[in-house]
Amino acid sequence: MSFGIKPLGARVVIKMVEAEEKTKSGIVLPGQAKEQPQMAEVVAVGPGTEEEKMELKAGDKVVFSKYAGTEIKYAGEEYTIMSQKDILAIVE
Amino acid sequence: MSFGIKPLGARVVIKMVEAEEKTKSGIVLPGQAKEQPQMAEVVAVGPGTEEEKMELKAGDKVVFSKYAGTEIKYAGEEYTIMSQKDILAIVE
Amino acid sequence: MSFGIKPLGARVVIKMVEAEEKTKSGIVLPGQAKEQPQMAEVVAVGPGTEEEKMELKAGDKVVFSKYAGTEIKYAGEEYTIMSQKDILAIVE
Amino acid sequence: MSFGIKPLGARVVIKMVEAEEKTKSGIVLPGQAKEQPQMAEVVAVGPGTEEEKMELKAGDKVVFSKYAGTEIKYAGEEYTIMSQKDILAIVE
Amino acid sequence: MSFGIKPLGARVVIKMVEAEEKTKSGIVLPGQAKEQPQMAEVVAVGPGTEEEKMELKAGDKVVFSKYAGTEIKYAGEEYTIMSQKDILAIVE
Amino acid sequence: MSFGIKPLGARVVIKMVEAEEKTKSGIVLPGQAKEQPQMAEVVAVGPGTEEEKMELKAGDKVVFSKYAGTEIKYAGEEYTIMSQKDILAIVE
Amino acid sequence: MSFGIKPLGARVVIKMVEAEEKTKSGIVLPGQAKEQPQMAEVVAVGPGTEEEKMELKAGDKVVFSKYAGTEIKYAGEEYTIMSQKDILAIVE
Repeated sequence: MSFGIKPLGARVVIKMVEAEEKTKSGIVLPGQAKEQPQMAEVVAVGPGTEEEKMELKAGDKVVFSKYAGTEIKYAGEEYTIMSQKDILAIVE
Repeated sequence: MSFGIKPLGARVVIKMVEAEEKTKSGIVLPGQAKEQPQMAEVVAVGPGTEEEKMELKAGDKVVFSKYAGTEIKYAGEEYTIMSQKDILAIVE
Repeated sequence: MSFGIKPLGARVVIKMVEAEEKTKSGIVLPGQAKEQPQMAEVVAVGPGTEEEKMELKAGDKVVFSKYAGTEIKYAGEEYTIMSQKDILAIVE
Repeated sequence: MSFGIKPLGARVVIKMVEAEEKTKSGIVLPGQAKEQPQMAEVVAVGPGTEEEKMELKAGDKVVFSKYAGTEIKYAGEEYTIMSQKDILAIVE
Repeated sequence: MSFGIKPLGARVVIKMVEAEEKTKSGIVLPGQAKEQPQMAEVVAVGPGTEEEKMELKAGDKVVFSKYAGTEIKYAGEEYTIMSQKDILAIVE
Repeated sequence: MSFGIKPLGARVVIKMVEAEEKTKSGIVLPGQAKEQPQMAEVVAVGPGTEEEKMELKAGDKVVFSKYAGTEIKYAGEEYTIMSQKDILAIVE
Repeated sequence: MSFGIKPLGARVVIKMVEAEEKTKSGIVLPGQAKEQPQMAEVVAVGPGTEEEKMELKAGDKVVFSKYAGTEIKYAGEEYTIMSQKDILAIVE
């Protein structure tokens, strides 16, 4: 079943990763008890633009800029739509 | 009957989607009781520009940036004219 | 008789449309009792620039960004000179 | 006798038009009793730049953006040096 | 074992250099008792972009702009993800 | 004897013109008793850049933007180093 | 012995010139008792970028924009890493 949110341009849809997964992957964000967590999984990517090709694909675990993006709720789950420029790195 | 508002450049005209439709499509915007809803349907699109081709077409359900666009009332209905850049994603 | 104000670059000269005409065309701007009306008719267009071709022509009914443009009085009538970029849409 | 101020780039030198001439040409600027008048005559133009060709020539009557430009006094007369981009329209 | 954080675009992952190493390399940052140290080692580099090729490689000792970058904790260690533009110089 | 300050890029070195010279050339700057005078002579020019060719040469009398440039003292004289973009016009 | 700090991009490393040298070269900066001196010697230059070729070389005496650059201490000496764009002129 394909995901129902299709980002425009060089945007991506990401979903926050739960604390348990974060421990497994080895990433912990400093001060995360006080701040919004910054690690997430990409669930959908836009087509990109002429200026900015997509470097990300669905399934990538990523770290992103705090405060970036717009939160939406879809089918009972919370997602964030964000510009690829605000994604800092892929975590493997 | 064609729609009477023709956006210039890479702009679109959108119409807010009522709460009932939002439930059917599965999208709920967090805190929407307090804030202006961010989901809408595209009713008209401009020709685009050389820098920015149109990715949207009339009928697309979209999520957009809060506070973007200019509201107008036409034939008794409220619409918003908005730059395509402020449209975040298509929701299917 | 040609109109005596020739806009430079990608600018246009517009004239506010009276409330009666607005009703006929079906456009009503929300809150217009409190704010400056945003619908107008194009009376003159500049030659455009290499970056921005003219999409508008004299006679077009348009909706424009609030607060944009410079007002002048010419031959007893009030006009606004405005960048084409501040014109949002043509209303038919 | 050629005029002694040669603007650089895409700048022009303009001279404010007196109230009498303004009445003849039919242009009146709203609120001009309170604000600095915005109509002027071009007295010299620069060579332009690669990005911006000159659209104006000496003798053009123009309307310009309030607050734009730098005032100088030359041979007992006051002039304003201004970027062509701040000239809104030619008035005929 | 390859490093598990892959920066996107022209970003790098750096790790602060301890005070002991700083003494060996001869670099001391003024006021470092009060401010966050500005010397680090590059541990991973992104692919670069068309506008900005990568000049840095893993292992480079670098000096960087104060306050730049985003801190993350990975496998128990603290790192900073930073744009290459915020790296000032390589120290040998 | 060549002048010892060589501006980089599209910068120039200028020297303020004394009040006596200003009277001869016919330029008087309004309010100059209160403000820093804006007329000067070019004493050295940089090589220019690809984006901005030099239009000025040493010896040109110029009018410039207030507050632009950096003042230096060289061989007992005060000069200002300034971007050519801040020079408004040549006065003949 | 080559200098151990290699600037990235179009940056340079400069070292402040002492007051004695300043007197010899004839440059005195106004108000320098109160402000940070603005004259320096270039000790290392970066490779430049496609947009900005290097105009400076090690050994050049330069005047630079106040407040520009980042100070570092290396082998017991203080240096400043600075963008070439913030260097105003070479003093001979």
